[in-house]
Amino acid sequence: MVSDGERSLSAYLDEVAAGTPAPGGGSVTALVGALAAALAEMVANLTLGREKYADAEATLRPARDRLTTLRMSLLDAAAADEAAYQSYRDAASLPRTSDGEKTARTDAMQKALNVATDVPLAAARSAREVAELLQSVARDGNPHVRSDVALGALLAEAALRGALLNVRGNATLLADRDLAATYLRDADLLENSGREAAQRAYHTAMDAAPEGGFR
Amino acid sequence: MVSDGERSLSAYLDEVAAGTPAPGGGSVTALVGALAAALAEMVANLTLGREKYADAEATLRPARDRLTTLRMSLLDAAAADEAAYQSYRDAASLPRTSDGEKTARTDAMQKALNVATDVPLAAARSAREVAELLQSVARDGNPHVRSDVALGALLAEAALRGALLNVRGNATLLADRDLAATYLRDADLLENSGREAAQRAYHTAMDAAPEGGFR
Repeated sequence: MVSDGERSLSAYLDEVAAGTPAPGGGSVTALVGALAAALAEMVANLTLGREKYADAEATLRPARDRLTTLRMSLLDAAAADEAAYQSYRDAASLPRTSDGEKTARTDAMQKALNVATDVPLAAARSAREVAELLQSVARDGNPHVRSDVALGALLAEAALRGALLNVRGNATLLADRDLAATYLRDADLLENSGREAAQRAYHTAMDAAPEGGFR
Repeated sequence: MVSDGERSLSAYLDEVAAGTPAPGGGSVTALVGALAAALAEMVANLTLGREKYADAEATLRPARDRLTTLRMSLLDAAAADEAAYQSYRDAASLPRTSDGEKTARTDAMQKALNVATDVPLAAARSAREVAELLQSVARDGNPHVRSDVALGALLAEAALRGALLNVRGNATLLADRDLAATYLRDADLLENSGREAAQRAYHTAMDAAPEGGFR
């Protein structure tokens, strides 16, 4: 598998559009989270080192560094989602002639499903953290690029919601009902706190933007 | 300028994150619209040609072809946004010593702003059309991949809203107030109809998804 990051944008879009399930929603949603992080980093980078915004250094420097880490891990999650889907397909293709084979196949499929739920759950956590950091960037960042913060907040929220669609879809297929319930509870908590953070960042950015500032 | 489509995902993310205003929100929002179109195409491609879904051919085949065109034009818009921003910067750098130079500079900046408003307006129209086509895909597409339709709807809505942030931000800087008012009215109409289409597609997809179908 070619790592997502090395593909060209147009090749990646072609692969998403193709009539194969991967890369699909799981990979795209992680990429959108990475785009949200990148926009937040851009605004931090257009703020840091400028005397006018010296007060923002203490909050925005660590925020920017953390956003870079989150962007990288979200890009990795885009590739990991494809790998997890392939593992599930591989498990589903195992032989099922004898009872022993059937049990082994079911076990392998459940293990693969577990990973396929963990990957979007981690992506959702990263998207929530991006949304939280966007609040600092909205408050302390260069006001001339706050429409980029607002867009980042819209994308972080969409990435969070998209990742949780996959968490919930895969969790419901888990035979271990206790484990499934834990995933679903985690998903609800993440959704509530993450969407609130994203919406707060969006409104802070929109309230702070100077009238018609062109970037 | 390297066309957006040829860049690798990770190089593009690096460029967004860098402390330069372009590529920024305008480019990212068009790319997110292209991702929404690609997800809708994927679902259409996982439906078309299968006997079980023969009834969907008449609507999904033209929808899929149109989505491909929209995806390409949204990817082009991502590059066009960067070019429009560069033209504005170039105009702002023109000499302004004499009155004649000042007038020429102001005119050039206004012309560049006009283009910089047209580009996201066209992207917003494309994102709305993607949302409209997602309604057909949600209704008639393979139900096992309808979470990808739901994600596509979230992304089409975010892309529409993001593009309109740029339309409004740039329109308010236009000296021609009648032209600015036209842009703002177009933006409002697009926002209302496009968000409604996206939300309808999202809910149709969520209502139709089979319990826990793994793609």
